[in-house]
Amino acid sequence: MNTQANLLSDQRCFDGNQQRWRHASSTLGCEMTFSIYLPPDAGPHTPVLYWLSGLTCNDENFVQKAGAQRMAARLGLAIVCPDTSPRGDQVPDDGAWDLGQGAGFYLNASAAPWQSHYRMHDYVVHELPALVSTHFSLSAKKSVSGHSMGGHGALVCALRNPGHYHSVSAFAPICHPMDCPWGIKAFSAYLGTEKDGWLAWDACELMAQASERLPLLIDQGEADAFLAQQLQPTALLAAAGKAGYPLTLRMQSGYDHSYFFIASFIDDHLAFHAQALQT
Amino acid sequence: MNTQANLLSDQRCFDGNQQRWRHASSTLGCEMTFSIYLPPDAGPHTPVLYWLSGLTCNDENFVQKAGAQRMAARLGLAIVCPDTSPRGDQVPDDGAWDLGQGAGFYLNASAAPWQSHYRMHDYVVHELPALVSTHFSLSAKKSVSGHSMGGHGALVCALRNPGHYHSVSAFAPICHPMDCPWGIKAFSAYLGTEKDGWLAWDACELMAQASERLPLLIDQGEADAFLAQQLQPTALLAAAGKAGYPLTLRMQSGYDHSYFFIASFIDDHLAFHAQALQT
Repeated sequence: MNTQANLLSDQRCFDGNQQRWRHASSTLGCEMTFSIYLPPDAGPHTPVLYWLSGLTCNDENFVQKAGAQRMAARLGLAIVCPDTSPRGDQVPDDGAWDLGQGAGFYLNASAAPWQSHYRMHDYVVHELPALVSTHFSLSAKKSVSGHSMGGHGALVCALRNPGHYHSVSAFAPICHPMDCPWGIKAFSAYLGTEKDGWLAWDACELMAQASERLPLLIDQGEADAFLAQQLQPTALLAAAGKAGYPLTLRMQSGYDHSYFFIASFIDDHLAFHAQALQT
Repeated sequence: MNTQANLLSDQRCFDGNQQRWRHASSTLGCEMTFSIYLPPDAGPHTPVLYWLSGLTCNDENFVQKAGAQRMAARLGLAIVCPDTSPRGDQVPDDGAWDLGQGAGFYLNASAAPWQSHYRMHDYVVHELPALVSTHFSLSAKKSVSGHSMGGHGALVCALRNPGHYHSVSAFAPICHPMDCPWGIKAFSAYLGTEKDGWLAWDACELMAQASERLPLLIDQGEADAFLAQQLQPTALLAAAGKAGYPLTLRMQSGYDHSYFFIASFIDDHLAFHAQALQT
């Protein structure tokens, strides 16, 4: 692994530091940018929350719009925000906003032309934490959260990697990608049309075989335009019930799919993760 | 005055509503968009904070990046965010980012070609509050705040209009525009090169003749790249001292000119205004 990384910016925020870093990713075969919030007095006692953003986002949307730094500073939590896909002229792309760059779906692709670069699962679970541990003196304790496509990513990263995270949460996650238009389109491209290969990247399917029980919190807006067709939290609720997985699903009246929704409840999620990471 | 206004969007945020409205402004001679945050249970008891943004901004920057809604909801404060200039193809503009559209400087222009549209002072102080009172059942009590060019705007709106506001605050305001490059460029264009006409739009000059003493809070980052040349809070501090105006100026170590700085201290400003508006 190339452990070189260059600091792009460093801005004071709630007496901590909001930074952007750029590095060459060997997993993805391209240059990547990530953001990190370091709370005041960050050190080996500081656990790390990984935040995975949704379709069309990069490492900056959450940093600028979620208002998370205030509570992260108070709780002593670092937050790492990767980009949502590999990037660059040499990386395959698609004209649509829900496939290719900005839409990596946090999986390891197996089908052409995507399979050489689109390995966001390995990047988020392995390469990026290793890079973070090289450049920052922080705790090895991790949790994971995300929004929409990134909520799917958080669930799948946690369910596929027992022992890796202390807790998992999501805002309006794509709960059952095998069975919704966004997921079917992405999985068909990245994994090929053989659906057996999709099972390992679907939170509802993974939950049935989960060997670990993590604290799991999901918030879902009831006025979210994507709720019924794309997100399907009831499918995850059913899978969790069947598997005996302790899922807290909160349906939030009047809230949509935007960062105004995330901002309204991010403090609850940070407190939820901080509690799990303390134990 | 045309009191028609159309709702563009309405999103739940901290159990209140974040809305955008569009209307024809008779003061500015163009269509304008503004944002308003309505806290939960907004009504005739709910005072209104006017937020004036900085160069290049529109009505959305503060709404998306300052994280103000959480505390506004808790305090029961509405926040109105106008755009930073008149807009549209028929409105004079300049290729530079610090003059013309996006850079109205919250004054009433008197020089060609600006004087017919660039009347942001009258828009912010008179037309917009009248429109707000027509469309929303809120208190008539108002305060004003802003950032950079909008900090200048907040100071000048308050100092020129005794009895209009209950309190005024600013983040990194342009304190003495007559004596800094941004201000000299804008005033020369909008007001003409005769400097006598500039005195009525400069906070340091206005403070010397202020007939009212409002609670006044300013936060300024010490790592702000514009501090020495453009912002000059020490000039305002000197003017306030000479006039016996009670100014609280807080120099914040390590903070720059960005919304990360604003987000870090916005709660203090909202609490400051809420207290003044309660009395």
